[in-house]
Amino acid sequence: MKFSFKNDYSEGGHPNILQALLQHNLDQQAGYGEDEYSLKAKEAIKRKMNKEDAEIFFVSGGTQANLIVISSILKPYQCVISAATGHILNNETGAIEATGHKVLGIETPDGKLRPADIIPVLENHQNVPHQVMPKLVYISNSTELGTVYHKKELKELSDFCKERNLFLFMDGARLGHGLTSEASDLTLENIAELTDVFYLGGTKNGALIGEAIVLNNPELQEYFAFNIKQKGALLAKGRLLGIQFLELMKNDLYFDLARHANQQAMKIKKALQQRGVSFLSDTFTNQIFPIVSQHLIEVLSEGFEFYVWKKIDDQFSAIRLITSWNTPDEAVDRFIEIIEKEL
Amino acid sequence: MKFSFKNDYSEGGHPNILQALLQHNLDQQAGYGEDEYSLKAKEAIKRKMNKEDAEIFFVSGGTQANLIVISSILKPYQCVISAATGHILNNETGAIEATGHKVLGIETPDGKLRPADIIPVLENHQNVPHQVMPKLVYISNSTELGTVYHKKELKELSDFCKERNLFLFMDGARLGHGLTSEASDLTLENIAELTDVFYLGGTKNGALIGEAIVLNNPELQEYFAFNIKQKGALLAKGRLLGIQFLELMKNDLYFDLARHANQQAMKIKKALQQRGVSFLSDTFTNQIFPIVSQHLIEVLSEGFEFYVWKKIDDQFSAIRLITSWNTPDEAVDRFIEIIEKEL
Amino acid sequence: MKFSFKNDYSEGGHPNILQALLQHNLDQQAGYGEDEYSLKAKEAIKRKMNKEDAEIFFVSGGTQANLIVISSILKPYQCVISAATGHILNNETGAIEATGHKVLGIETPDGKLRPADIIPVLENHQNVPHQVMPKLVYISNSTELGTVYHKKELKELSDFCKERNLFLFMDGARLGHGLTSEASDLTLENIAELTDVFYLGGTKNGALIGEAIVLNNPELQEYFAFNIKQKGALLAKGRLLGIQFLELMKNDLYFDLARHANQQAMKIKKALQQRGVSFLSDTFTNQIFPIVSQHLIEVLSEGFEFYVWKKIDDQFSAIRLITSWNTPDEAVDRFIEIIEKEL
Amino acid sequence: MKFSFKNDYSEGGHPNILQALLQHNLDQQAGYGEDEYSLKAKEAIKRKMNKEDAEIFFVSGGTQANLIVISSILKPYQCVISAATGHILNNETGAIEATGHKVLGIETPDGKLRPADIIPVLENHQNVPHQVMPKLVYISNSTELGTVYHKKELKELSDFCKERNLFLFMDGARLGHGLTSEASDLTLENIAELTDVFYLGGTKNGALIGEAIVLNNPELQEYFAFNIKQKGALLAKGRLLGIQFLELMKNDLYFDLARHANQQAMKIKKALQQRGVSFLSDTFTNQIFPIVSQHLIEVLSEGFEFYVWKKIDDQFSAIRLITSWNTPDEAVDRFIEIIEKEL
Repeated sequence: MKFSFKNDYSEGGHPNILQALLQHNLDQQAGYGEDEYSLKAKEAIKRKMNKEDAEIFFVSGGTQANLIVISSILKPYQCVISAATGHILNNETGAIEATGHKVLGIETPDGKLRPADIIPVLENHQNVPHQVMPKLVYISNSTELGTVYHKKELKELSDFCKERNLFLFMDGARLGHGLTSEASDLTLENIAELTDVFYLGGTKNGALIGEAIVLNNPELQEYFAFNIKQKGALLAKGRLLGIQFLELMKNDLYFDLARHANQQAMKIKKALQQRGVSFLSDTFTNQIFPIVSQHLIEVLSEGFEFYVWKKIDDQFSAIRLITSWNTPDEAVDRFIEIIEKEL
Repeated sequence: MKFSFKNDYSEGGHPNILQALLQHNLDQQAGYGEDEYSLKAKEAIKRKMNKEDAEIFFVSGGTQANLIVISSILKPYQCVISAATGHILNNETGAIEATGHKVLGIETPDGKLRPADIIPVLENHQNVPHQVMPKLVYISNSTELGTVYHKKELKELSDFCKERNLFLFMDGARLGHGLTSEASDLTLENIAELTDVFYLGGTKNGALIGEAIVLNNPELQEYFAFNIKQKGALLAKGRLLGIQFLELMKNDLYFDLARHANQQAMKIKKALQQRGVSFLSDTFTNQIFPIVSQHLIEVLSEGFEFYVWKKIDDQFSAIRLITSWNTPDEAVDRFIEIIEKEL
Repeated sequence: MKFSFKNDYSEGGHPNILQALLQHNLDQQAGYGEDEYSLKAKEAIKRKMNKEDAEIFFVSGGTQANLIVISSILKPYQCVISAATGHILNNETGAIEATGHKVLGIETPDGKLRPADIIPVLENHQNVPHQVMPKLVYISNSTELGTVYHKKELKELSDFCKERNLFLFMDGARLGHGLTSEASDLTLENIAELTDVFYLGGTKNGALIGEAIVLNNPELQEYFAFNIKQKGALLAKGRLLGIQFLELMKNDLYFDLARHANQQAMKIKKALQQRGVSFLSDTFTNQIFPIVSQHLIEVLSEGFEFYVWKKIDDQFSAIRLITSWNTPDEAVDRFIEIIEKEL
Repeated sequence: MKFSFKNDYSEGGHPNILQALLQHNLDQQAGYGEDEYSLKAKEAIKRKMNKEDAEIFFVSGGTQANLIVISSILKPYQCVISAATGHILNNETGAIEATGHKVLGIETPDGKLRPADIIPVLENHQNVPHQVMPKLVYISNSTELGTVYHKKELKELSDFCKERNLFLFMDGARLGHGLTSEASDLTLENIAELTDVFYLGGTKNGALIGEAIVLNNPELQEYFAFNIKQKGALLAKGRLLGIQFLELMKNDLYFDLARHANQQAMKIKKALQQRGVSFLSDTFTNQIFPIVSQHLIEVLSEGFEFYVWKKIDDQFSAIRLITSWNTPDEAVDRFIEIIEKEL
């Protein structure tokens, strides 16, 4: 059986989560997110964020979180600004447009957005009322390219959005990885301060399913539950989400799992760097994009699964390796061993 | 701690399901429903239906299933016909309309639809192109009132729909209860033959989450997966749904669980009938609506939770009792004991 | 050639309008409603309403006005309350639902809505967040049944809406007819005071096309133009609408045309009443629904076109007669002559 | 009074149109496009196209035509491919996305699309079901840059679309100008053969309002009228559109008007070229984009209105001049005179 580095959702959930589901399985609870676990999990997240007035809702997945958040905020004529690499632009089957809203993509070298990227878009959308009105800035942390925002960058972007009357929404499908990256100086508290809304991704960080949408801006909180229900995202057994996030928040399990994933990727990165391998982009989270020879790809493929991401030339391609909360040392060591032998 | 008869999603999942999740937790699987459990579960359902050319997709919940199925079938100017009690009309926050489609509600005494109910609606929608075009008939089995379709009724409705070029869609959030009701002469095979699309509800019958959408009509199958993804319903860890339905299909667990729920409700019903209590509607599944005195409601409320459904007069109200796959004999016996003492 | 009483849009426009179009045809004007005629027409309407802070937009037709107004006001989970006879419910091909919003219909005897009609709907929509939130009350004046609101009724409805935080929107496709009816004690100024938004219908009152949407509530005014453009309703040659409304406002032509239409219908009504004919509803505008014999229908059909509206029994049916700004005395006299001969 | 070269919708309608409206004003006609003028106009267009089995519908404007055509054709998960300069991408306030569909923009030098532009987009949208499915190719002729398709190009694009199972839709807001351009070898008959659907623009070519949507592909014809009504585009007095197109078709007025507009622009173009002025793009229709000095802009602005389109450097900018069916020789001569004096 080959070990897979294809993504961070190949396995089930962290054992603590499974144990908690088992332990609380037969007690009777209120439905639709009113169960005691969901309520406690929300409190735990708020404490961790040090923001008591946030509102939190649990949903099943990232595309669902993205479409509910965006469609709940925008008026019909308003649109989203995203990096061209944004998940909502390329990997969600037009889910945002299906709710009626355009997404404007901006080319950036590292998948991050800065005020200087956004200003020209605002300037080119002044032909009132013949053009959509940009109103929400969508970013991801870590980004789809595995890069992370620094505190200064996020602060500047947040200030800019406030100044221009734009909402700032952070897709946190891999927020744990973003915050525990060695390259990051951000905390969850910072995220809560600097965004209007974000979510804490569970699916890619040890949960079976689940993303926790956090509404920091009070203006966005009222009636949000209606949107959750209308889009088919309100689970009858909301306990399934509550129990998981409660476990993930205990003793910072959420952050430990992400840190583990990052470290496993960084070990491989270091081994490759020591042998002079270059990378498609310089990442510090659980995704790396080394550029390797066709021969090495073949050798590695005997024991591992991974995506060939981008052809560079006739001989070389970038591959994508993703590690997870559950990637064992053994798999990493074995992978490095092959590299050391081959390079 | 009071025992709750409020709904059939108060507990977690059937122990077999939890065990299977635990057992397969750490093996690596493909994402997005391509895992081996999902594939096997689909095969198991097809075998049970005796219909190899059906296409099956797992989603998280009933509102999600309803909105995806309906929006994938209808053209912008087409609409749904539903009984006035239909879940999509009253309990889904306008989820269908949010996808652009009107739902026409028809008053019927028992929550079921018959050709005679539909004909006048078709006749009243002939002012082309000033009115929506009815195109899909939405029914539930068991219905929101706990009633069930008989084979002859479903056959007549199915023939009528074919004749009038209408699609027939069965909401099966409680299909297990419908099929195992003592009043039912339908099989899963019949449902597959007589509907264009239906779903097998898991959430209300022992799963943690999950509904299995079954597309019988080949015309509806192609590209359906795009709709699942676009509406945010494609779980990265699709295994969570696959493993559950695989367990539910083993040894007909799905039907045994539903039958148990029905039987517990019927025991209470019988006890009430023997004491001359009347009911809001005559149901044969896991929902009963006895009309009892205010005094009895108070006494029962000391030990049980349930909804007061409809005020009948100053003294009497109908209450709703729902039993589940997990309702223990003890709770039922205790409830009956009180009735016997008080009436 | 038979004379048609089928509707009030059988002819072109009032001659003044045609003359004005001809006169101003070749001067160059700014596009998209920024022409001098549109600006002047807006000022003229505001003066007539005595409401300088209203915002006015011209669109082509009633369905367009309805869908733009409603979709611009409501959030995704909010819905409309309408009389069951409402034009948006029955005659607009699901245009409102196509923008994502449910319309709840209430049965009323006369096509009008009163607080007592609305209260039960609000009470039945308290299951948060499982149901849509009623947020906008849609009425028509005159109604689809030809009835009109009295000042006291509209005041009570307006107060009720404010109290319950509902928007009040009046479809004024036949507002001229409503206001100039002998049964009406309302003025345009009252309408502006008592509604959040309404429109002045031109198409059915002497214009070639055109409805003037009037936004009284400042909260609804900002950015409204974006909705007009996005829904394809912003005419490049907005002058076509401006010139027409400017003419209609001159010397109260708008009201004179509607009064003429009403009077022609009332003449026929009186003649029928004098011969003991009864009516489907007692109307005082340009629509009447007399109940006449099959024989009379045949005789009248030799010289006139009209709709047979509703079969009453084997011998009698209600017919619908609509008069217009252009219905000549001669046609009315000839029609009455036949009645007098036959009855 | 300055003469405006700002656009081709500054004036009203061609005098023949106004005369016809006047002449037929008071005859009674059926509503909603069933009037005799609309029926005759459709026949006239079909004859001109030599395509009897086409279906034709008249609507008010271009954005309306675009959104109705596109939303009627696509399934929820399908999207549009357009040149990056496409009107639907930049100038319609997200009207297409508001109907639920993404528009993918492709950068091209001349605003035209060729198979080679489209192939990479198809190749990059193979991640089923995580990406939208390209299904409709949207082109304009003349394009937003004033360029035109040649017969060979359109044939290749049409063949490609058929081969790839894509619909081909031509926005003809300026189709008259496109076909009568000295650079064009296409006829209306060719357009009917080579596209699935297109429209003949009236608003920018002598009509007061109106675009004629022509559905060539039989698969797209059925029930199309429902879409027209649902989007608020079905005029009660459809005669307004029918009378205009009937006049435009008489003696090829439509083409004569467009040719006149083109010729006036070409006269100015030639005068500028003779003095060595360069252009932003080399156009052969009624739009030209000369690059002129700031000084010349100031001098010209004393007598003319036009848009400064794009700054080239500190001294030079491209201006946009648009001529119309009604641009008099006098204005053109006066403009050229200034050029000759200044350059």
